[in-house]
Amino acid sequence: MMEINGNRLWESLMEMAEIGATEKGGCRRLALTDLDRQGRDLFVSWCREIGCGVEIDEMGNIFARKEGRNPDLPPVQAGSHLDTQPSGGKFDGVYGVLGALEVLRTLNDHDHVTEAPMEAICWTNEEGARFPPAMIGSGVWAGIFDLDYGHSRVDPEGKTIRDELERIGYLGTRSCSLSPVKAYYELHIEQGPVLEAQTKSVGIVTGGQGCNWYHMRLHGMDSHAGTTPMPYRRDALQGAARIIARLREAVLQQENALVTVGTIELQHNSINTIPGEVFFTIDMRHPDPQVLSGLDQKLRDLVDEICREEKLDPEIDLIWEAPTVNFDPECVGSVRNAAEKLGFSNMEIVSGAGHDACQMSHVVPTGMIFIPCKDGISHNEIESAEPEHISAGANVLLHAMLQSAG
Amino acid sequence: MMEINGNRLWESLMEMAEIGATEKGGCRRLALTDLDRQGRDLFVSWCREIGCGVEIDEMGNIFARKEGRNPDLPPVQAGSHLDTQPSGGKFDGVYGVLGALEVLRTLNDHDHVTEAPMEAICWTNEEGARFPPAMIGSGVWAGIFDLDYGHSRVDPEGKTIRDELERIGYLGTRSCSLSPVKAYYELHIEQGPVLEAQTKSVGIVTGGQGCNWYHMRLHGMDSHAGTTPMPYRRDALQGAARIIARLREAVLQQENALVTVGTIELQHNSINTIPGEVFFTIDMRHPDPQVLSGLDQKLRDLVDEICREEKLDPEIDLIWEAPTVNFDPECVGSVRNAAEKLGFSNMEIVSGAGHDACQMSHVVPTGMIFIPCKDGISHNEIESAEPEHISAGANVLLHAMLQSAG
Repeated sequence: MMEINGNRLWESLMEMAEIGATEKGGCRRLALTDLDRQGRDLFVSWCREIGCGVEIDEMGNIFARKEGRNPDLPPVQAGSHLDTQPSGGKFDGVYGVLGALEVLRTLNDHDHVTEAPMEAICWTNEEGARFPPAMIGSGVWAGIFDLDYGHSRVDPEGKTIRDELERIGYLGTRSCSLSPVKAYYELHIEQGPVLEAQTKSVGIVTGGQGCNWYHMRLHGMDSHAGTTPMPYRRDALQGAARIIARLREAVLQQENALVTVGTIELQHNSINTIPGEVFFTIDMRHPDPQVLSGLDQKLRDLVDEICREEKLDPEIDLIWEAPTVNFDPECVGSVRNAAEKLGFSNMEIVSGAGHDACQMSHVVPTGMIFIPCKDGISHNEIESAEPEHISAGANVLLHAMLQSAG
Repeated sequence: MMEINGNRLWESLMEMAEIGATEKGGCRRLALTDLDRQGRDLFVSWCREIGCGVEIDEMGNIFARKEGRNPDLPPVQAGSHLDTQPSGGKFDGVYGVLGALEVLRTLNDHDHVTEAPMEAICWTNEEGARFPPAMIGSGVWAGIFDLDYGHSRVDPEGKTIRDELERIGYLGTRSCSLSPVKAYYELHIEQGPVLEAQTKSVGIVTGGQGCNWYHMRLHGMDSHAGTTPMPYRRDALQGAARIIARLREAVLQQENALVTVGTIELQHNSINTIPGEVFFTIDMRHPDPQVLSGLDQKLRDLVDEICREEKLDPEIDLIWEAPTVNFDPECVGSVRNAAEKLGFSNMEIVSGAGHDACQMSHVVPTGMIFIPCKDGISHNEIESAEPEHISAGANVLLHAMLQSAG
């Protein structure tokens, strides 16, 4: 039975991790920075080394293709992203891209030609850390966002995705839009503690939880910290602090619900001025759309109540809704078959995070493969995975793709 | 009885306010920026127009001097600052500098020569908004900070006070250190609601409340917002939010106590990452040193308790303590005499804010004069004061200084 080269895959992961390496062993390679360009260039060079054709689309998504015997068949694809969180790890996203590359390399080693073409994909700006929202490249491809929207997203300095794509030389000409695909797979670390706790090597991902992202702004009044009596204040940060703490209390009442405030900024930072305006974000998730909708209402009620008490004017902007996702039964089946055939311990699992696969699942048959990561930690420099699991996941990807490609 | 020229003072205030004017009618003229240089240049040109000698010291403090009859007498001084908050008003500080200038202009109009010399002073970086801590220029002069400390304070971009003084041409050669002073007065808007509520034109300031400034840092762990179950999290911002809200609750139990969190920053802002590190500041004030010390302990207990529950590692750094200040009885008496003689409604008041006068009061005889400001609002673009009160305060300053100067 064909097997991927685990050492080669591991070494490629380590080489990629040197681009944007951080002191604590993580990676900071934000989307469309010079470092992202270096990572993309390295991936493209590896694809060309094994004779793949490489195309870049209008969103900077990279498609490396190994032709099949039947040029009329749609491709079987696998991919993920090379951009990282500001303080990210070596595996999130990168494993899915280089795992897909390792599948193509393995076919090349064995001179194995499939019926359908096989593609490895690097999607642009999956993290959304530099350009919110997340999963933009795959989202535009899948028709969830239009191209203008994708191009015009801005980073905190006001630079657009289009300008930055052009600057780093990755504004391609291939159309960024849906075309026929036989199956799309994505290989990823779990980014949570479940597989490790259950001592399983492989997670057969059946779908993803729903997620809402909010931009919040509270307007109060700047005034002097030393002379404004407490009852006269309209302190925007006090309002935010109470909302942040109370919202978590509400979410803790609800099994499987998650809430995170990952961004907070005052209009003016000054030690002796009462903050007149605060901006913060909320990330709220639940596998059940009904429950998520209830939490949305809870948030709005809480903001109303606290802002009334604190004499603040709130703005709540639901900037992004990722619906609950159910993956394609046939793709999920191919992943299960591959894991069983290869003899890896496995279990079904729902993805806690959003992935490019979630965007793809709305328009093409999609499946995902998880492997454990140490202590369930991700979006952190100490993110870590075992070489044994890295190999297992890539072998499952290889055989699931082979089953789809014929 | 000699009187200042209220129209001229008002027009000078309005002209200075054009430098760094904001859309909402306020002022943004941060210490040692190009705008601060423009403001300083304008003040110096006005001082020279009336024949004053102007000297700049090593901290960039500006001393404009009108000689007296007796060159052996120490000067009677008045001053304040021209730097503003990031979103400040037209009067905070500026009124004290241009009020002192108006006194010198008035003496010049009347060819009135006092026994002692009279000086108008502009102190460097009173706000501390760009270079914490506050009241640096007067603090070095009064020996509360040494010169190296003053020169080496940095802004958020890492630029030092010394480099920025040099850049804008205000690194002077006069020694920035204590020299004999007969009396120091400072004219200021109240920045609080008391005089307005009591319908008094003039506040006779008897002293200032104590103030502690803290730098706080909480260390948790960055991790993924979608995959980290709530009980596994070490969310630094949740810890900060609870401390901010609970600290206010504690302060509300204590009459006359004030607490403000005016700065908050995450190490990484990312919508879908649990914050692993947060920095924030605390400004805590009370007129009674005993009570302030009790609040300090309360803060430390609260941080211990919450960080234990949230699995965070806290750092508490008390970066600055401004002790309670009592002004000089003779200077306070001169202010009272002047207000009574001129027939202005008046009351005694304790300053809620720190002022350059608080630094001066540790080493030279010091007094302050307050006037009301609209709704007690300051450190805000809508900060406002009545021309009638502006004139009243400057006339009190004139006559208090004349009494000290003989």
